[in-house]
Amino acid sequence: MRHFLSTEDWSRNELQGLLDRAAAFKSGVKSRSLEGKSIALMFFNPSLRTRSSFDIGAYQLGGHAIVLDAKGATWPLEFSDGTIMDGSEEEHVREAARVLSSYVDLIAIRCFPQFKDWASEREDPMITAFAKHATVPVINMETIVHPCQELAHMLALQERTGGPIAGKKYLLTWVPHPKPLNTAVANSSLLIASKFGADVSILVPDEVYRLDSRYMDSAERFTAEGGGSVTLTTDVEAAYSGADVVYAKSWGALPFYGNWDEEAPFRAKGADFMITPEKMALTNNAVVSHCLPMRRNVKIADAVVDSPAFMGIEEAENRLHVQKAVMEALALQGGAE
Amino acid sequence: MRHFLSTEDWSRNELQGLLDRAAAFKSGVKSRSLEGKSIALMFFNPSLRTRSSFDIGAYQLGGHAIVLDAKGATWPLEFSDGTIMDGSEEEHVREAARVLSSYVDLIAIRCFPQFKDWASEREDPMITAFAKHATVPVINMETIVHPCQELAHMLALQERTGGPIAGKKYLLTWVPHPKPLNTAVANSSLLIASKFGADVSILVPDEVYRLDSRYMDSAERFTAEGGGSVTLTTDVEAAYSGADVVYAKSWGALPFYGNWDEEAPFRAKGADFMITPEKMALTNNAVVSHCLPMRRNVKIADAVVDSPAFMGIEEAENRLHVQKAVMEALALQGGAE
Amino acid sequence: MRHFLSTEDWSRNELQGLLDRAAAFKSGVKSRSLEGKSIALMFFNPSLRTRSSFDIGAYQLGGHAIVLDAKGATWPLEFSDGTIMDGSEEEHVREAARVLSSYVDLIAIRCFPQFKDWASEREDPMITAFAKHATVPVINMETIVHPCQELAHMLALQERTGGPIAGKKYLLTWVPHPKPLNTAVANSSLLIASKFGADVSILVPDEVYRLDSRYMDSAERFTAEGGGSVTLTTDVEAAYSGADVVYAKSWGALPFYGNWDEEAPFRAKGADFMITPEKMALTNNAVVSHCLPMRRNVKIADAVVDSPAFMGIEEAENRLHVQKAVMEALALQGGAE
Repeated sequence: MRHFLSTEDWSRNELQGLLDRAAAFKSGVKSRSLEGKSIALMFFNPSLRTRSSFDIGAYQLGGHAIVLDAKGATWPLEFSDGTIMDGSEEEHVREAARVLSSYVDLIAIRCFPQFKDWASEREDPMITAFAKHATVPVINMETIVHPCQELAHMLALQERTGGPIAGKKYLLTWVPHPKPLNTAVANSSLLIASKFGADVSILVPDEVYRLDSRYMDSAERFTAEGGGSVTLTTDVEAAYSGADVVYAKSWGALPFYGNWDEEAPFRAKGADFMITPEKMALTNNAVVSHCLPMRRNVKIADAVVDSPAFMGIEEAENRLHVQKAVMEALALQGGAE
Repeated sequence: MRHFLSTEDWSRNELQGLLDRAAAFKSGVKSRSLEGKSIALMFFNPSLRTRSSFDIGAYQLGGHAIVLDAKGATWPLEFSDGTIMDGSEEEHVREAARVLSSYVDLIAIRCFPQFKDWASEREDPMITAFAKHATVPVINMETIVHPCQELAHMLALQERTGGPIAGKKYLLTWVPHPKPLNTAVANSSLLIASKFGADVSILVPDEVYRLDSRYMDSAERFTAEGGGSVTLTTDVEAAYSGADVVYAKSWGALPFYGNWDEEAPFRAKGADFMITPEKMALTNNAVVSHCLPMRRNVKIADAVVDSPAFMGIEEAENRLHVQKAVMEALALQGGAE
Repeated sequence: MRHFLSTEDWSRNELQGLLDRAAAFKSGVKSRSLEGKSIALMFFNPSLRTRSSFDIGAYQLGGHAIVLDAKGATWPLEFSDGTIMDGSEEEHVREAARVLSSYVDLIAIRCFPQFKDWASEREDPMITAFAKHATVPVINMETIVHPCQELAHMLALQERTGGPIAGKKYLLTWVPHPKPLNTAVANSSLLIASKFGADVSILVPDEVYRLDSRYMDSAERFTAEGGGSVTLTTDVEAAYSGADVVYAKSWGALPFYGNWDEEAPFRAKGADFMITPEKMALTNNAVVSHCLPMRRNVKIADAVVDSPAFMGIEEAENRLHVQKAVMEALALQGGAE
């Protein structure tokens, strides 16, 4: 039984199959492949777009979604084995995952990192425990990666460019934000662009913004196997020059994980990293995107967002279609039911 | 494409068409007019009745509702153009409305005023921005007016009186409440009663409780065009005498909007404005109603609520039926799909 | 019209009928008995499992559930008659129950006791008021009893033992927990085991943990009429010896209801009441269970939970099936519709 925890576990061909199915859904193809089936959407963190698109996607496939709202990161679920549970955790994932598996056919989980200890949080312990104990497929709705966003992004890119992005110059640029954020979407941008063979530049204000080696190494492996390259740079002009794709994301520097006051001086180096028409003029008529929500005139200037180059709306719409493809693929695995 | 933001934008005939369709639904007529369609219910403020009746109404029409709970008034959506979004707002309505429109076929919004600045809040900026940027119809679930409640109220009145209310004496009376409240339901009572040609008296403890000129002027215009009249009075006995309909609502005086301490002495003048059997004895055997929730023995005495004259339960039930009529009319506009 | 407020109101034969229908659902029997019908799930207290299983159960029967989340015990509903509602309560159950009844076909309620005054809370006033004023059947999703859990437990027992539990030795044992808890599941364990004729021992650290006479008396009556017995004991070894069933629950001692500091010394007497392999070795190869959530290594040791004797997962799964049987039975009463 396969889960959808990270695109790392799926080949480029398999991912393309999901994208092709999503494109078919977008063009009007109907399916009742979830007829009589249910999916639990477990949110340890808030969501509007993800819960909407999964819920409606399940409905359009004939199925039914239930939303379990764990109100922030405080839902008392223990995931370590052998613990004496005399603290705030009321239930173990061993029980929660098995019982939920007896009610539903799919479990989707959003669980952001806690900004406490990256050494343990980089193992993605909650969703990993769920996937271990659940007896139905588990889907990642964003933890320390965001694989559904990756598919939506890649589908939008393929729609815009009319084909594969292998050999294209793909710029993932750090952009300003008032707060240090999770690296999930940055990791995901790196994973999907390298998986599909792009020449990826990661533009950061300082090398302390390097992404975790787990994802840097995966990206190196993907490009070694399938073409493309991965570069970390602090040179704004070089990074934008000739870029075919610009993807914006803000994130906190991992060496200061949870100690954000010390990160401030490095963050200040990126004060002018907002995407502007001037920077876009350096590119090869690039498309530009950002996972929503997005702060206008902080991350990307209005003039760029409101230009034809911006594909963030299409990317967000594609969430609905790619998630239908993922739910269908996981629900139907193991043959007809 | 038409929205349902205020009954001001719909003619009396169009509204009667919605009421007739609602009456048909109430009498058992079935429809699958939302088959395969979705509606997003966005709540910036809490709700039980509205979310229940919209959700069930969509289900009964073959459709599917998703509830987006924005937890109070704090959901970080920016609606002004050109803003540098470095504050608490994480997303602009321009993006939110367009993306949501790509997932669903209808968007319904509840967004109460903030009690900060009536000069800007009287423009209903959030729902207005949504209606501007959404590419699907938008329905008002209560902002500074409450048009769905208006239809439910008018349907209940027509059921009770067996026909039109033109020429009837319609009393909208201010009633006590521990806190200053939104004027939405009072505005709506005025709009729908004047639209349908009633002789409307607004009974208040003091003229500071006059409703906003936006709605007073609309009501004057409706009665000038379609018959009826509008009067503001502080004379309790005269107001109740011969009334055919008594509608109760409490609201805060707009001149003290957000400065409620200064409103207290005027509020005290209405301490005995509760609807009692003695007041009802002055009427022409009037029906009496109130939008729920309703504080018993504060706004209306038990002896009135529990008498046959009270039509608040029917009015609340009618929410289900009129909202089905509204959803159907908006979803089907522009021809068969 | 019958409600499902407590198994006390249903005969053993009627309950067995529900269990048989639940077993049929579990074995794959399909039904569309809620087609076009809705159920409101009103939660005055949090829930994940109950809301999931009711929601999915309604969907599987062709119906539709709406979840009304009353966020803790603070939802402002007044249930006393004649009150001047000038406090925090905004609405009376008289209105809420009647209006909700006009939207849905079934109402299910979770409303835990407040830990303030057992003399009034033992009357279960909120759900009692709802059942009085609603015009559709009301289902108890846990108040001071938990009848759906009872059915799920009994179905799991019948699956494990292959038949009736009359004459079996049934041990309900108090177990440790950091906080004093509601007696609902303990009351329910007592009610269902005695209703089905077991020899019930209630093992407690001190006689102050005796359950309310309302339930002790019912249990005495059930065993007098239908066989079995009820005993309260503090003798751990005797209680476990030869037991066929061990059911674990922690609860607060009613004489100290709301004054939990004074309960602490009695609670300390049960410090070693956790279910261990050593205790289980005294039994007649007993099955062991607990209503979820369950703190591992506080209430029951890992070695017991992870042994074949543990049937808590099956019991939790059965919630889905028994609730479908209850919803169907209540929705279909009074003949075909």
